[in-house]
Amino acid sequence: MRIDHPARAAGRKVVVIVGAGFAGLNAAIRLRNEPGVHVILLDRRNHHLFQPLLYQVATAGLNPADIAVPIRAQFKDANNVDVHLGRVDGAMLGRREVSLRGGTDQIAYDYLVVATGAQHSYFGHDEWEPFAPGLKTVEQATEIRRRLLYAFEYAENEIDPEKQRDALTFVVVGGGPTGVELAGAIADISRTVMVADFRRIDSSKARVMLIEAAPRVLGTFPEGLSAHAEDDLRALGVEVMTNAPVSEIDATGVRVGDTWIRSRAVFWAAGVQASPFELEPAPPRDRAGRVKVNEDLSLPGFPNVFVAGDMALMPLVGVGKKGVSTGGAVPGVAPAAIQAGTFVAETILRDLKGRRRKPFAYHDKGTMATIGKSRAVAVIGRTQMTGFVAWCAWLFVHVYFLIGFKNRLGVMWTWVWSYVFSKRGARLITEREWQLDSEGWDGGT
Amino acid sequence: MRIDHPARAAGRKVVVIVGAGFAGLNAAIRLRNEPGVHVILLDRRNHHLFQPLLYQVATAGLNPADIAVPIRAQFKDANNVDVHLGRVDGAMLGRREVSLRGGTDQIAYDYLVVATGAQHSYFGHDEWEPFAPGLKTVEQATEIRRRLLYAFEYAENEIDPEKQRDALTFVVVGGGPTGVELAGAIADISRTVMVADFRRIDSSKARVMLIEAAPRVLGTFPEGLSAHAEDDLRALGVEVMTNAPVSEIDATGVRVGDTWIRSRAVFWAAGVQASPFELEPAPPRDRAGRVKVNEDLSLPGFPNVFVAGDMALMPLVGVGKKGVSTGGAVPGVAPAAIQAGTFVAETILRDLKGRRRKPFAYHDKGTMATIGKSRAVAVIGRTQMTGFVAWCAWLFVHVYFLIGFKNRLGVMWTWVWSYVFSKRGARLITEREWQLDSEGWDGGT
Repeated sequence: MRIDHPARAAGRKVVVIVGAGFAGLNAAIRLRNEPGVHVILLDRRNHHLFQPLLYQVATAGLNPADIAVPIRAQFKDANNVDVHLGRVDGAMLGRREVSLRGGTDQIAYDYLVVATGAQHSYFGHDEWEPFAPGLKTVEQATEIRRRLLYAFEYAENEIDPEKQRDALTFVVVGGGPTGVELAGAIADISRTVMVADFRRIDSSKARVMLIEAAPRVLGTFPEGLSAHAEDDLRALGVEVMTNAPVSEIDATGVRVGDTWIRSRAVFWAAGVQASPFELEPAPPRDRAGRVKVNEDLSLPGFPNVFVAGDMALMPLVGVGKKGVSTGGAVPGVAPAAIQAGTFVAETILRDLKGRRRKPFAYHDKGTMATIGKSRAVAVIGRTQMTGFVAWCAWLFVHVYFLIGFKNRLGVMWTWVWSYVFSKRGARLITEREWQLDSEGWDGGT
Repeated sequence: MRIDHPARAAGRKVVVIVGAGFAGLNAAIRLRNEPGVHVILLDRRNHHLFQPLLYQVATAGLNPADIAVPIRAQFKDANNVDVHLGRVDGAMLGRREVSLRGGTDQIAYDYLVVATGAQHSYFGHDEWEPFAPGLKTVEQATEIRRRLLYAFEYAENEIDPEKQRDALTFVVVGGGPTGVELAGAIADISRTVMVADFRRIDSSKARVMLIEAAPRVLGTFPEGLSAHAEDDLRALGVEVMTNAPVSEIDATGVRVGDTWIRSRAVFWAAGVQASPFELEPAPPRDRAGRVKVNEDLSLPGFPNVFVAGDMALMPLVGVGKKGVSTGGAVPGVAPAAIQAGTFVAETILRDLKGRRRKPFAYHDKGTMATIGKSRAVAVIGRTQMTGFVAWCAWLFVHVYFLIGFKNRLGVMWTWVWSYVFSKRGARLITEREWQLDSEGWDGGT
């Protein structure tokens, strides 16, 4: 059934936004209460997720609900925004329709914003996923938390020192910001929170490895900061391996070059690819599956269709206010997606007013990554920061972005508290029954 | 392999405690740092759960981690307590051993405390469980939350008014304190939090039904309070059906007498039975599976084996300090389990000092149940309370009991905040993929 929203008959433009991540949510926020448009925001989740702090959920520092906000809550006072929970199959651009429920329903649009984001890429080895979960969703974060906490419990119950050592070997694959933050946080809790909890094992002897195929971690940062981050990681007790491509992962460990690392807790932070959302006709995509878009983020040939955020290969038109064209692509970070979402909304509003479109100018507000507790590296414009100063900057930026999250004070409190006092309030293993059954108590007292 | 803890050779008594609920945890807390004993505390979960507030997790008021505390965290400074995550199969009383891992390992004990608690009973209809989850574990609470929140999303997407109405019919089976609190909270959030969130449905028209087989709700309370609670529930918009035994539950609804109530969100709070923990030789149990124990909570014929909490049929020896024998059984409530756990620990310590055992004297500190926001009924001694006064008493008691929970201030803040401002911070649907696939977006805009 084709669904034509009554707003169209009333002369308003229907904007269908697929995905309520940073790009889609901010596009909808910019359009809320604008009289000329009606927005239909579709997502398969009921919540928008503050992904930059997802590693804190994975390491028991924050609750899932601390960094997830119901999408509806953002639009309760906006009569021109409909929020719908559901899976969208794809879009037929020629007919100006998105397709739902396996093609039985279609929603007509005047403008389409595709912002379905990215997911993990195992570089053609999808069979690795069960052994090395990624960190993109709440469910994945609680699964990593479960494996992490369970490893300590398992080791405590184990008599065989070799098996104990294997259980306490944590491997993070991928040395980008997520991998660095995850490895740092695991090393941090092993050396602080966990130490007092266990009787038979010395959790501070847990081995935390960060494995990166490229010659250095944080490849998008200046070389000096990469080196600084590696030093900081080593100071925390993380073994950093660079030039180390992974060639095999199974339930018992990881193969890196000629070395087999025995581990039951491998986490994947190595690659992303654009979501497989289907557009008909299919536009050109790059190797990472990102859709190539014009400078105004519209799809070539379809000025009423925009692709924004991690789903798009957004051309880097200018940096800062100088607008110097530098070539290359806008990085796949949260601030870029937020800016792109807002930009697309503003472009639609310009269209309605008959104004000329502008190219998307990405304002680089800086890049940063934390390393364990109270250390970070940051690049803000030409300024490079390290150590505690960088960490304070990082904290400030995250407080700033969390604004809009309802319970931000509570979250900040939980989080600062857990950082300062080395507590982890969310140390909760929620079980999957089958895993409990198959891996339950493992002897020894 | 039989595991004989070295503490025994050193002349200390090994106390094995199975289950870290209110009874088991408090027994271990009473014994921590006592020089004469070594405690092995076994649980299949890594966390102790504050079950009286579980309905708040189910209705998105609190996070799971707010009411769950890692068991280990209670014993980090107690060298005489070992905590182990694992499933225990049962105990062979003649050999003084508990059995693990399907019988391949045994732990020897001098004293055994069985405190494995209770689980839901479907009165011989276990096939109802998938359609009517209970509320005993964190996983069940998040499942109820998922079904509850999803029902509103489904209804919002649905065009057919009949299906919409079915989706917004919530049925709670069982009118004890859990059922009353759950039904009240569902009615409350439907009328407050949800109203602003949805565009097409009027969430305040959601139908919330509380179904009780007996002639009145809160059967263990005085009749006047039951009537008061029913009035409070009706004022909140809950339809209370008494004398209404359920005869059938499936994916589409519930049969009550001759009436078929169409509902896709049925929750079970009707019956409990003792956990099926196996004792060899098998002791007599009552109809609810509870083990009959002596006045000192020991098992007849086995003075070194205690059963405490919901697993036990504990004889009611005295009420208050007067110690008048009244017959009957100690009620299955948290304060009783806490007292029983502490009592058992003290009995063991008396044994070690060669003192005579005493009978367990349950001190009834009162019973209470909340009804929605800011109303409750309570019996404290001879005093009966209702309305806001009772709710304040209820709040005070829960604050008091939450002491020992690390982040109690944060929890109280979250919770008072959500009560006062009608917000629900934990409105998070975490999906099971298969359910999302099979029930995804359902048309209409």
